[in-house]
Amino acid sequence: MDVVEFQPAFEEYAFTFGGVAPVRRVAPGSALRLWSDDAFCGALRAVTDLSSEKVDLRYVNPQTGPFYVEGAEPGDTLALHLVSLEPARDWGASAHIPFFGGMTSTDRVVTLQDPLPDTTYIYELNRARGTVTFAARHGDLRIDLPVEPMLGTVGVAPAGGEVRSSLVPDRFGGNMDTPQMRAGATCYLGVNVDGALFSVGDGHYRQGEGEACGTAVEGAMTTTVLVELVKGGAPPWPRIEDDTHWMTVGSSRPLEDAWRIGQSELVHWFGELYGLHAMDAYQLLSQITEAPIANVVDANYSAVVKARKALLPTAAAYGGLHEELRRRAASLF
Amino acid sequence: MDVVEFQPAFEEYAFTFGGVAPVRRVAPGSALRLWSDDAFCGALRAVTDLSSEKVDLRYVNPQTGPFYVEGAEPGDTLALHLVSLEPARDWGASAHIPFFGGMTSTDRVVTLQDPLPDTTYIYELNRARGTVTFAARHGDLRIDLPVEPMLGTVGVAPAGGEVRSSLVPDRFGGNMDTPQMRAGATCYLGVNVDGALFSVGDGHYRQGEGEACGTAVEGAMTTTVLVELVKGGAPPWPRIEDDTHWMTVGSSRPLEDAWRIGQSELVHWFGELYGLHAMDAYQLLSQITEAPIANVVDANYSAVVKARKALLPTAAAYGGLHEELRRRAASLF
Amino acid sequence: MDVVEFQPAFEEYAFTFGGVAPVRRVAPGSALRLWSDDAFCGALRAVTDLSSEKVDLRYVNPQTGPFYVEGAEPGDTLALHLVSLEPARDWGASAHIPFFGGMTSTDRVVTLQDPLPDTTYIYELNRARGTVTFAARHGDLRIDLPVEPMLGTVGVAPAGGEVRSSLVPDRFGGNMDTPQMRAGATCYLGVNVDGALFSVGDGHYRQGEGEACGTAVEGAMTTTVLVELVKGGAPPWPRIEDDTHWMTVGSSRPLEDAWRIGQSELVHWFGELYGLHAMDAYQLLSQITEAPIANVVDANYSAVVKARKALLPTAAAYGGLHEELRRRAASLF
Amino acid sequence: MDVVEFQPAFEEYAFTFGGVAPVRRVAPGSALRLWSDDAFCGALRAVTDLSSEKVDLRYVNPQTGPFYVEGAEPGDTLALHLVSLEPARDWGASAHIPFFGGMTSTDRVVTLQDPLPDTTYIYELNRARGTVTFAARHGDLRIDLPVEPMLGTVGVAPAGGEVRSSLVPDRFGGNMDTPQMRAGATCYLGVNVDGALFSVGDGHYRQGEGEACGTAVEGAMTTTVLVELVKGGAPPWPRIEDDTHWMTVGSSRPLEDAWRIGQSELVHWFGELYGLHAMDAYQLLSQITEAPIANVVDANYSAVVKARKALLPTAAAYGGLHEELRRRAASLF
Repeated sequence: MDVVEFQPAFEEYAFTFGGVAPVRRVAPGSALRLWSDDAFCGALRAVTDLSSEKVDLRYVNPQTGPFYVEGAEPGDTLALHLVSLEPARDWGASAHIPFFGGMTSTDRVVTLQDPLPDTTYIYELNRARGTVTFAARHGDLRIDLPVEPMLGTVGVAPAGGEVRSSLVPDRFGGNMDTPQMRAGATCYLGVNVDGALFSVGDGHYRQGEGEACGTAVEGAMTTTVLVELVKGGAPPWPRIEDDTHWMTVGSSRPLEDAWRIGQSELVHWFGELYGLHAMDAYQLLSQITEAPIANVVDANYSAVVKARKALLPTAAAYGGLHEELRRRAASLF
Repeated sequence: MDVVEFQPAFEEYAFTFGGVAPVRRVAPGSALRLWSDDAFCGALRAVTDLSSEKVDLRYVNPQTGPFYVEGAEPGDTLALHLVSLEPARDWGASAHIPFFGGMTSTDRVVTLQDPLPDTTYIYELNRARGTVTFAARHGDLRIDLPVEPMLGTVGVAPAGGEVRSSLVPDRFGGNMDTPQMRAGATCYLGVNVDGALFSVGDGHYRQGEGEACGTAVEGAMTTTVLVELVKGGAPPWPRIEDDTHWMTVGSSRPLEDAWRIGQSELVHWFGELYGLHAMDAYQLLSQITEAPIANVVDANYSAVVKARKALLPTAAAYGGLHEELRRRAASLF
Repeated sequence: MDVVEFQPAFEEYAFTFGGVAPVRRVAPGSALRLWSDDAFCGALRAVTDLSSEKVDLRYVNPQTGPFYVEGAEPGDTLALHLVSLEPARDWGASAHIPFFGGMTSTDRVVTLQDPLPDTTYIYELNRARGTVTFAARHGDLRIDLPVEPMLGTVGVAPAGGEVRSSLVPDRFGGNMDTPQMRAGATCYLGVNVDGALFSVGDGHYRQGEGEACGTAVEGAMTTTVLVELVKGGAPPWPRIEDDTHWMTVGSSRPLEDAWRIGQSELVHWFGELYGLHAMDAYQLLSQITEAPIANVVDANYSAVVKARKALLPTAAAYGGLHEELRRRAASLF
Repeated sequence: MDVVEFQPAFEEYAFTFGGVAPVRRVAPGSALRLWSDDAFCGALRAVTDLSSEKVDLRYVNPQTGPFYVEGAEPGDTLALHLVSLEPARDWGASAHIPFFGGMTSTDRVVTLQDPLPDTTYIYELNRARGTVTFAARHGDLRIDLPVEPMLGTVGVAPAGGEVRSSLVPDRFGGNMDTPQMRAGATCYLGVNVDGALFSVGDGHYRQGEGEACGTAVEGAMTTTVLVELVKGGAPPWPRIEDDTHWMTVGSSRPLEDAWRIGQSELVHWFGELYGLHAMDAYQLLSQITEAPIANVVDANYSAVVKARKALLPTAAAYGGLHEELRRRAASLF
């Protein structure tokens, strides 16, 4: 299989979902190898680089894309299988951006208090050991943490002619910021416009659930992704499948509504997968779901609801597409 | 070590935290073996037993206790180590109670819609295989699920002279409904009144995160618990420690505020454990916390925030009390 | 009509709803003239008195009561008609209490930010002109504002054996903090325990809707109240009737749920008052309700939903009790 | 003064803020007389017209505009003074749209319950008496209600290249659905793009605060509006001034965050108007603000925070622009 490589120049980045012309056309079945910059556009390179001084808030969370998927029409299902995520720099950055994050007032959760101190953390990457290093700024503690690469942002153009900031997660995917979006996962998104116009970005070398301070270990990333198209069957909200779990992602405020969306979407998906009546799926899932919070910091909060396949009878979504994509991914190397 | 056994008669149950005279006095260091009824007081024994007909809502979530811990004073820390949780019946029950649960309007999230159909599910326990069996009510699907016993409710008397329903989770613990409250866990609670007056109940043979339908696989439980007292150091909100994780539990509405409480409490705990400045703890935890939702159905919603010990330097809470309790627990058998 | 006068000594104050023995027994039809201290127990008397230094948080929002209403049983309706509210001191106090209020993080909406500066404002009362004077602390601006006395807190003992802090509004009334609770209003509360055990307190010489900073112009108050009892008919949530409006008060978090409760309660009340089908009441009220926020600072937030009588056909609640109480009130003077 | 008249053809309607070419260019100082269709595009004309059958959800809330204001640049302040709002049809329509509204689960507040029955209400307009008539669908009650025309939607193109559905209220204004947007009001909006690109629509012949069922008495409207431009001074969120009040409008979820935005914006505006320190403005506004809920049904909820000018010293916003526009409006007739 050929792999299409794409590394955008700065002026090629997209900062919205929708409203941007595609950078490439790709056929279903394509493999792409995409370079994405970090959410700060690489502006934070030392602890002395403060987000309030170095980051232009009009240009954050740059997206690599959008890609026009040939044949994709509204109502179809786009499947994006993440084959691999490789850190593309030797360091990641995180920052306590003033009035941004989960443990501070923000432009939406407004108070009259002063902001937390703008602070930058640089995490050195050790490729050999597969670690990034936390280094305290107010003490000497240093901790090596495993690299667990993920993409904060995967999405398509929204419905209804909307154009949304790349900071927003919603039905179209976007800035969901869940650690579940990692190599080995297949993300299913409903197509809203011809060509789907998907993009990816916001690589994280690792991130805790909730993304408490608003920024993960943000890092440039090289992502290899397989693109497939299923005619019809557009899920109302993003779904993720990996080898072990069925997952849905809801995004809204307050956080319980994000969870409600995720839980309800999984109830309906279980109707498709197992022929379960909604009341039975509701009951079963009440006893087996895992519900890791994704983010409590973005324009919408996101919650993942997931069910472990090993607890369940065998089932196949979209004709067993995930397994097929796993096979194709294995053949890439 | 002697083990104090206690099985309450119905009239000995407590339905509140606070406001009830203790059933026993126990010394710190005691081991208790406690029988607790299920949240329905055992009223649902067949799928034809409907919660709207059989459950007296004035008598739900019965608590075994309260126990007066000798020497406990306000400001102290009560440590409850769960040694073992053993299903005390051969079946558990779950129900879609009208206007109760996470996928329905409720008395707090009010709409004018009709309730979901009142439906009862009975889960047969197979002790040999360690499973309970989900049986669809609108189809033939049956699924054996692993028994993973936990306690929905662990708490002490509230502060400020308050008396709270056993359905409520808050600073005093209570109905947190997290699967983390399982054998091997030590729960730390701040003492608000002389004797602490703790109680336990609401056994679940298993429960998904979120407890979506409002009821788990509810079952009578035999709980063996070690009681310890630390003078001073009362945590503002419940903490849980097990062999693998440091955990905090926040309970409030909306759900993001439950998470905020948990995240903030872990930041402060990390200050104690590792001497970390709050900004550094905030940063570190942003990259490593797991954030499983506990419940989105009770009077307050609960979220757990947890950090994996294996990622971190060695540290000891409360003088290594958890390890000590693990040792004592091992010696019980 | 005799008027029972009661001015509590400090040790006679109640700081909870429920859990306190009655200070007096009163017969339905009684008139009471009650003295209540301000929410700070009178501790803030000059701008140099800081809440963080002078206020003992275990003793805030003192309630005058509870009163045992003879014949009141669970399921009955207690009617409290506010005849007059008279400032009982020549000044009121307000304070920006650290981590309390609507424009700051709190113990429930937790952030890691520093608190706002603890600041006290003293409002001099001019009885002749009927004003209290705002005096800026960071400038020279002084503004005379009309005195518009109200009670922040009116409530009964809760159901289910609960005891709640006097800072909490809920089904039992309590700390609703709505300017609608003023002279001329009749408040209807469902009775949960024998004798109802109502109390009043938290006088405000005036308050904006939302009570943004968490404290109004807090002042000692002399309240004249008529007590009546309606057998049966307990409303699930507080209702208020005055000469111009039908009102309901919902209290919960998030604020939309407080509003939902209020809106739904008014839909159901309109069923009683006008025989309207719920869908018709829903429609009609969608076009006529006023929805002033009461408080966004207490343990539960409160919202008032009200409908103007002048827009509607004549109707009588509880047999025209409000009009009857207005007549009796007029005869008191 | 010339008055520019504009009645769009259907294909000229905008269904988004942003993303649409202007229909006209207008100079600051212009008067416009604009026809807008109702939110249903006129599809509901009888009670037998059901929203689920007649309304194409891709084409709801049509906007008249956008208008390009000459000289308007990002950072400027657009002032729109509503001179008059005249019902343009002899009836208005309201509907209980399935899964839309405040007393039902929705696509964001998801439950598994059935929807409320889709029901349409037609309100006949009596121009002579200035009333619309509520007619019960499940009984005989008919009530004449005063016509109080308002615009649900007034907004400009969003910042950051976003394009938002006309159903959304946010910083750019949009679907705020507040009864305060009536004749005599001046709305100030921050300009985000060259020309501002404002539009108006969603006429309501009357609406209750909260817009509980999701739809007001929706009606085609003829709006006369004066357009002015202030260089610089862009308010972060919409402001409204009329002869009696200073007002701000916040829009977010949960509802308390909409209120927080409004309250905070008024604090900051009072800094401009009266030179008040933020702590003093916070205190003063805590005692005088009115806080009517606007909507609890749209993609963001909206709350108005307002302060009565009569309580305050004289002040002028934007150089007394509102008074000037009132004078010009008077000269129009």
